[in-house]
Amino acid sequence: MASSSAPSSAASTAETFPAGTPAAAQIFTTVLSQGPLTRLELARRAGLSAAAVTKAVRPLIEAGYLVEDADTEARPALGRPANLVRVDGGRALFLGLKLTGDQVFGVLTDLRCRTLLARHAPLSDRVPKAVLASTAEMVRELLTEADGYGVRVVGLGIAVSGDVDRAEGVVRYSPFLEWREVPLAELATAVTGLPATVDNDVRALTVAEQWFGAGVGLSDFAVVTVGAGVGCGLVVHGEVVAGAHGVAGEIGHVTVDPNGPPCHCGNRGCVEAIAADPAILARIREAGGAEADSIDEAVALARAGDAHAREAYSRAGEAIGRGIATVANLLGPERVVISGEGLAAYDLFADQIRSAFAAAAFGSAARCELETRPLPFEEWARGAAATAIQSFITEPNRP
Amino acid sequence: MASSSAPSSAASTAETFPAGTPAAAQIFTTVLSQGPLTRLELARRAGLSAAAVTKAVRPLIEAGYLVEDADTEARPALGRPANLVRVDGGRALFLGLKLTGDQVFGVLTDLRCRTLLARHAPLSDRVPKAVLASTAEMVRELLTEADGYGVRVVGLGIAVSGDVDRAEGVVRYSPFLEWREVPLAELATAVTGLPATVDNDVRALTVAEQWFGAGVGLSDFAVVTVGAGVGCGLVVHGEVVAGAHGVAGEIGHVTVDPNGPPCHCGNRGCVEAIAADPAILARIREAGGAEADSIDEAVALARAGDAHAREAYSRAGEAIGRGIATVANLLGPERVVISGEGLAAYDLFADQIRSAFAAAAFGSAARCELETRPLPFEEWARGAAATAIQSFITEPNRP
Repeated sequence: MASSSAPSSAASTAETFPAGTPAAAQIFTTVLSQGPLTRLELARRAGLSAAAVTKAVRPLIEAGYLVEDADTEARPALGRPANLVRVDGGRALFLGLKLTGDQVFGVLTDLRCRTLLARHAPLSDRVPKAVLASTAEMVRELLTEADGYGVRVVGLGIAVSGDVDRAEGVVRYSPFLEWREVPLAELATAVTGLPATVDNDVRALTVAEQWFGAGVGLSDFAVVTVGAGVGCGLVVHGEVVAGAHGVAGEIGHVTVDPNGPPCHCGNRGCVEAIAADPAILARIREAGGAEADSIDEAVALARAGDAHAREAYSRAGEAIGRGIATVANLLGPERVVISGEGLAAYDLFADQIRSAFAAAAFGSAARCELETRPLPFEEWARGAAATAIQSFITEPNRP
Repeated sequence: MASSSAPSSAASTAETFPAGTPAAAQIFTTVLSQGPLTRLELARRAGLSAAAVTKAVRPLIEAGYLVEDADTEARPALGRPANLVRVDGGRALFLGLKLTGDQVFGVLTDLRCRTLLARHAPLSDRVPKAVLASTAEMVRELLTEADGYGVRVVGLGIAVSGDVDRAEGVVRYSPFLEWREVPLAELATAVTGLPATVDNDVRALTVAEQWFGAGVGLSDFAVVTVGAGVGCGLVVHGEVVAGAHGVAGEIGHVTVDPNGPPCHCGNRGCVEAIAADPAILARIREAGGAEADSIDEAVALARAGDAHAREAYSRAGEAIGRGIATVANLLGPERVVISGEGLAAYDLFADQIRSAFAAAAFGSAARCELETRPLPFEEWARGAAATAIQSFITEPNRP
């Protein structure tokens, strides 16, 4: 059986999360993001009564998702020690995949979204059939590894750049993959046997930050990603913004200069047309600088002091800073996390990002914190796993 | 007693709204915005059980805020007719004031935010003491008129442009009034005897649209106001965006052209520096066109075919359209309502707004509807009344 090409037995039967009500899902999410917590503190943070917490916690402890430990650190002077409730991260496993135009990155995580192992493989072709075959192969490999943990893999998340309808599980349009209207969640479930969640890659990363990263406890923050493109995930009033028509967070198409370089969207001088990797390479080329065929070469040139390369990064930083200021002026977030693979070059444009932001932020919007976080491609895959964890907890009855 | 300078007896005793729980406030708000509704439909729209609706509706009917009528229109073929629940708009009255740099506009509304009468008066001076005296005088006049309705005035809303902290009732900074850190809600209650809500004027207008206008039933929409300044109120996930630090919706400071005209914020080429009334006048002057000393003259010139005036409006429309596209690209709203006193000139820049929006909107963000609504200053005051109605319903226990 183990040598069969069918999905591993670890995933062959569905496991349902025992959160019967939205309140129970909310309580579990609070422990997951902010735990360990005492029941009293949990009730306070979830805005619910102690009775509601007790009622929700019991089946979750019985099913092994929550555990309660005596808190030996915070023993009160009088009375019994307050027990701490925490999530048993090892209770369930998840897979996350990030599809780029030419590779698939995969991770196996636990329920607390801690990466247990990461893999990547080339994509032989971009047509859905070929990508699904690579996806199935990657999932099979990760499931085989997961067998060693003796815990079931209960969900798969897939992150794709572009216009993705998470609720319907459909990739509406992905420029890198050249896909339109691909029902990826359904197709992925068919080939892997796992419940699948499909989301835009930047939104997936934002979910990971919201539940497990720099956004924990914040009701309003943004994640800005810099690299092959420039993207943005927004959390407003505690929820990720998806847009009424599927488009949101398009910081890459904020206009910085109407006379600037042409953008693939048809306008000129968008943030992405100045600050994305291809724009930086194009700028160095047009300025007549030394030859740079890849972004690694461009970074090396700039670090070696090449004036054209430095100027291209300086302009990129200014565009990113202005874009972030626009987000801050419209939404007033508490924090913006700047991330993405382009952040490997952060030393080359950090000052310009910060000074352009400070100059263009209006009034107290300038009090928004800018935080940077370098991000390998595996982290995008972990974002996909975070969406699978979110679906597992909040949509226990989905097919 | 009626000739005394004390607030009218209509406001002398506090009236408390009998909504004991957030669910009850939500049910009442749903009827207020979307009613008349059957109880069944009300339960569906509020996402609550029929039992919860029955429990919440009873005290509201007993206190006269809701009434239940037999629905003679929609009588079912079988069984008893379904009764319709609606708000008795005449059950309570509210005052709304809008302060500009030189005038105070006031309205008396009913509980359904229908304007019963409107007044305006000059402000003799901008210092808080003088503005409070004018406010008290306007309130006194409106309360005297309200006496004729035989219904109590139960709340006062005041709308001010600038950085306003509604939760604390403090005007942090208002450029038009040249105020900093003025505890206006507390001061207004002291001189009027009415519970007072203070909010940013554009956000107040957005509340009015959300509860009583073009935003009813939408979870994501924006209001863009054009006139002396260019402002924006945003509703995301069903709530008005206030910003973590008090600044949000600053569409006026989205950069359209980094080489454009200087803006009072210190940058160049902001939407407001191109499209607000003073910017339009400045542009006509600089272009060497005919003399226009007021925006009414500028509009008249443009309508008469003056090339410089027409060009100034054309540029303004393009800047507004780009600003709206930035909002749509970041948030993906269902609808943007374009409003403000500047909309009297809408025929002069409507085409440019729409074409610049269409060119700069990314992908399906272009599906956002643009709707226009001309808006006299009285409507700003009505927005203030809407915030007072909102506070009355959702914060029944505030001082």
